[in-house]
Amino acid sequence: MSSDYDEVCRLGRELSNWGRWGDDDEIGTLNLVDAAAIRRGAACVRDGVGFSLALPLGEGGPHTNSIPGRFNPHHYMTAIGLSVPASPFFHFSDDVVVLPLNAATQWDSLAHVHYEGRLYNGRVADEVLSVGGAARNGIDKQARHPFATRGVLVDVARSRGVDRLAAGTAVEPDEVDAVLAATGTAVESGDVLLVRTGHMRTFLVDADREAFNGPAPGLGLAMAPWLRAHDVAAVAADNVMVEVTPSEDGSTICPLHLVTIRDMGLLLGEMFDLEALASACAEAGRWEFQFVAPPLPFTGGISSPLNPLALL
Amino acid sequence: MSSDYDEVCRLGRELSNWGRWGDDDEIGTLNLVDAAAIRRGAACVRDGVGFSLALPLGEGGPHTNSIPGRFNPHHYMTAIGLSVPASPFFHFSDDVVVLPLNAATQWDSLAHVHYEGRLYNGRVADEVLSVGGAARNGIDKQARHPFATRGVLVDVARSRGVDRLAAGTAVEPDEVDAVLAATGTAVESGDVLLVRTGHMRTFLVDADREAFNGPAPGLGLAMAPWLRAHDVAAVAADNVMVEVTPSEDGSTICPLHLVTIRDMGLLLGEMFDLEALASACAEAGRWEFQFVAPPLPFTGGISSPLNPLALL
Amino acid sequence: MSSDYDEVCRLGRELSNWGRWGDDDEIGTLNLVDAAAIRRGAACVRDGVGFSLALPLGEGGPHTNSIPGRFNPHHYMTAIGLSVPASPFFHFSDDVVVLPLNAATQWDSLAHVHYEGRLYNGRVADEVLSVGGAARNGIDKQARHPFATRGVLVDVARSRGVDRLAAGTAVEPDEVDAVLAATGTAVESGDVLLVRTGHMRTFLVDADREAFNGPAPGLGLAMAPWLRAHDVAAVAADNVMVEVTPSEDGSTICPLHLVTIRDMGLLLGEMFDLEALASACAEAGRWEFQFVAPPLPFTGGISSPLNPLALL
Amino acid sequence: MSSDYDEVCRLGRELSNWGRWGDDDEIGTLNLVDAAAIRRGAACVRDGVGFSLALPLGEGGPHTNSIPGRFNPHHYMTAIGLSVPASPFFHFSDDVVVLPLNAATQWDSLAHVHYEGRLYNGRVADEVLSVGGAARNGIDKQARHPFATRGVLVDVARSRGVDRLAAGTAVEPDEVDAVLAATGTAVESGDVLLVRTGHMRTFLVDADREAFNGPAPGLGLAMAPWLRAHDVAAVAADNVMVEVTPSEDGSTICPLHLVTIRDMGLLLGEMFDLEALASACAEAGRWEFQFVAPPLPFTGGISSPLNPLALL
Repeated sequence: MSSDYDEVCRLGRELSNWGRWGDDDEIGTLNLVDAAAIRRGAACVRDGVGFSLALPLGEGGPHTNSIPGRFNPHHYMTAIGLSVPASPFFHFSDDVVVLPLNAATQWDSLAHVHYEGRLYNGRVADEVLSVGGAARNGIDKQARHPFATRGVLVDVARSRGVDRLAAGTAVEPDEVDAVLAATGTAVESGDVLLVRTGHMRTFLVDADREAFNGPAPGLGLAMAPWLRAHDVAAVAADNVMVEVTPSEDGSTICPLHLVTIRDMGLLLGEMFDLEALASACAEAGRWEFQFVAPPLPFTGGISSPLNPLALL
Repeated sequence: MSSDYDEVCRLGRELSNWGRWGDDDEIGTLNLVDAAAIRRGAACVRDGVGFSLALPLGEGGPHTNSIPGRFNPHHYMTAIGLSVPASPFFHFSDDVVVLPLNAATQWDSLAHVHYEGRLYNGRVADEVLSVGGAARNGIDKQARHPFATRGVLVDVARSRGVDRLAAGTAVEPDEVDAVLAATGTAVESGDVLLVRTGHMRTFLVDADREAFNGPAPGLGLAMAPWLRAHDVAAVAADNVMVEVTPSEDGSTICPLHLVTIRDMGLLLGEMFDLEALASACAEAGRWEFQFVAPPLPFTGGISSPLNPLALL
Repeated sequence: MSSDYDEVCRLGRELSNWGRWGDDDEIGTLNLVDAAAIRRGAACVRDGVGFSLALPLGEGGPHTNSIPGRFNPHHYMTAIGLSVPASPFFHFSDDVVVLPLNAATQWDSLAHVHYEGRLYNGRVADEVLSVGGAARNGIDKQARHPFATRGVLVDVARSRGVDRLAAGTAVEPDEVDAVLAATGTAVESGDVLLVRTGHMRTFLVDADREAFNGPAPGLGLAMAPWLRAHDVAAVAADNVMVEVTPSEDGSTICPLHLVTIRDMGLLLGEMFDLEALASACAEAGRWEFQFVAPPLPFTGGISSPLNPLALL
Repeated sequence: MSSDYDEVCRLGRELSNWGRWGDDDEIGTLNLVDAAAIRRGAACVRDGVGFSLALPLGEGGPHTNSIPGRFNPHHYMTAIGLSVPASPFFHFSDDVVVLPLNAATQWDSLAHVHYEGRLYNGRVADEVLSVGGAARNGIDKQARHPFATRGVLVDVARSRGVDRLAAGTAVEPDEVDAVLAATGTAVESGDVLLVRTGHMRTFLVDADREAFNGPAPGLGLAMAPWLRAHDVAAVAADNVMVEVTPSEDGSTICPLHLVTIRDMGLLLGEMFDLEALASACAEAGRWEFQFVAPPLPFTGGISSPLNPLALL
């Protein structure tokens, strides 16, 4: 499939969710996380085991620190065992971080990307302010919705019998369908799709931040219609951008971001650590689970770090 | 009950969980969130409705900014609709925050307070470092455990038929037992207790940050044995300190913090917004729900903001 | 004199220095600090005594912390007596600040204010970028010029025989001329004018930050033609805004800022502590001195804190 | 000369200035900047030309960002052309930085390094606090002194006829004396010595931050007695550490830091850009000038960036 910007525009119009949940909507496909989805998610909890899908937030994080605005969090102590003069028995510690909201495991909000001057649901891009950030579509809006539903893991690397996909490999709908069929899993409206490429091993096993942040396997642009047809609430992956980089046509930048976030109002989850979860799914022989992953309500925030849980 | 520091020491020894989960344990009562608790929590999801219990993280947050190290997060844009020269179609925004880890809704880690030179499980207080923070017992350790269990709301304000309890009012075991009995709810090992005093209305309704951060209703020290006897995994409240302030004897500082965090290894959840949840519980006539509240894995972190969810 | 915005525009046109030092100029009246001015300043050093005119940069600074973006600097330690494993003899400490560039004693750059879409020298206001800051006219440009010249103190409070001028008092050209005449001092091209209102005592003596940041005495708008006629290189005062607040007509905001910074390309120095210097001048009976006050080269910076020195 | 730690201790005792300016002294050799030195400095201003010796403070700065706590400043906008509802004519911009106090051109304070538990003048090292920083000997103390004196440039690279000295080259007293003799310059008590190795070209010309922050030419430990004998007020250089790295014996870390800062109370100036000044000195045939270089009064600060001026 071509993925130049004409194709982005065409797909954007075709898959658009603008107006679907009202002209004032600021949460997009999170609307699909309804009572049925919340119950369906909870019903997946059988073994009572759970997994944190978050990378560490600290100097040991996944960023290379070479791009301004994208660095591993700085952590400073504001109290270390402090006491108060009147009460020397009591001691406390406190701390503060300087935290890029795109540090490590995160959701991109519906204000993260745009084209032709418009954000999701037709908001003008100028509503992302130099002071205050996203006046519309910010992560604080999405954080108010109870983001708990069923998650479905598509372990592409395991399905291919490889440690990880090569950089630049696009994951396409046929393969996703085949993996789902092989694992006997069906995706329903309001589910979240988690795609494992194995690219996370470049950071976690190889400790190679440069390579982890460089070209990577990920979703091809053809996944956009698939995600829309299945009405997933969000998609997350174990790489930096969710989508394949460089893009399939080699010239466009993040075409899947543009169509999913801006036109579909779909949240993208980046740098999710799926390693332990994938092993557990393979052992249990089921790839569905309760998935609880609310972002934090940063006012006007463009993204939010979080600690997503998968419960089997 | 007296709450001078001799009493703190005596209670600490009596209620100690040191060694209970091994000498290397760094997560304390989170160990009680086992497979049974995870399943019990999920089984509470019947209506498929959910509530975020988090306050906003931004300039509109609950801090007064008058105490160094305790201020509402600063939010800065690092990209606003930026494009790249080769690809002017694509635009993105990014941001960063300066974030006290005790800003707004949070868990205190097991490294937050200490006395007599020891943290939870006998770690020396010097393991809270000036650089790197909590080498032991930090919030990153607790963040790895899948913190999803059953939550039980004890709505003391509603039980008393008041808007909110007066500042300085101590919530004691007898009242908690009475509220639980009246609502037909039993607390089991691994549950989380959520206590509503109504004090949150001082911030949310009155918008009075000074009063919100001043004297407040909260748990009395006598709740420590109760929490230990019921083996709850954590306790959270809708005030700044969980415990009543000033303390009941008027002289000790945060005695409940010391016994619960340092001796019992129990997490305290502060500034939880229980207003909407409490209304829903009253309407539904049940006060138990799935409670999913993992902190974020800030390396060496003393606390962590989060977005806790209650699912009914 | 009227000071509504029509008057601002009229004065702006009349006093404009746009193009005076070339179309690419980004330092404005600092151009007047030439070899003669540098020598004239140095020649003022007779007694060999000097004064720092800077307020402290720390939690004890002059801000109230109630306005986002204007707070006293946060200071964090990044190393405290750290050693390295191979060499336990050596210990070092390091630190970091979160620093509003308008914290405490500062120069406003020529990118700080604008009207009608234009900065000093006709630069479009859009050259102040959301990322990178002032692409033109930033403080980094002004920091390259050797800002050392003659300073002249006009001690209005002392001249009036008062501790400080009342809030809202405008200092006008006649009074400045009278003070200069009484002290036998003449202002030449390239000099810096330092105006003492005594308002700094509201912070330093009364410790009343609210009042210090509220209505204040300062320069009236009629000083703009005076400053242009005398071709001073900069003007600094012991208040927050240099100019009188509220403005004389009660409706315009910072009219003197607009005309001086945007039209004249004149740097304004805010929150200069002139107390010790003023006492020394009175005792010595001379009100001129070497004044050395380079801002720091913050790339794209809108302002810069500094430690200005006056040497007699 | 040997430079193991026994030698550091021996030199420290021999060259100590502890008690020389009273037991409460916190500014060390800045005491040598007296009225005579201030006048002597001003008297050097003949041509009326000046040079800023500061590197840029921004993402383009000299740090590699690979060491936590040592990174190039982050610059964020807190207002961009903002207006106020009542007055849409007026627009302003503001900004903030996250600034390591050792970023770029800086003075190390007398609290920066220690050994055997003692800072300069016998202060216990514990007076460097986890919150608040240097309670004693901090840069705020040194910032109060009027730091304007005579500066003397020793251009070692030019004297040797090279672009720059090789990494690891120690500059020793004999060579300094020879350069001074060749340029007809004598160093007096209270002067500041500026040593040019040419290493700055590794950053400014080669743009090689890794190499700039690696092994470098600089002062040998034998310069400590020389600096003490000449009673200079401070020494600055165009490298990262002032002293040669690695140290001459290959095993000790920053031995010159320890003796000068901790025992002598001597300020070290790091990353001074001497390129333009050196050219001007060579052209003018004189290597002395007024040197004005006050640090900024960061409360409890361990270091301070600044914009040093040299005026000929």
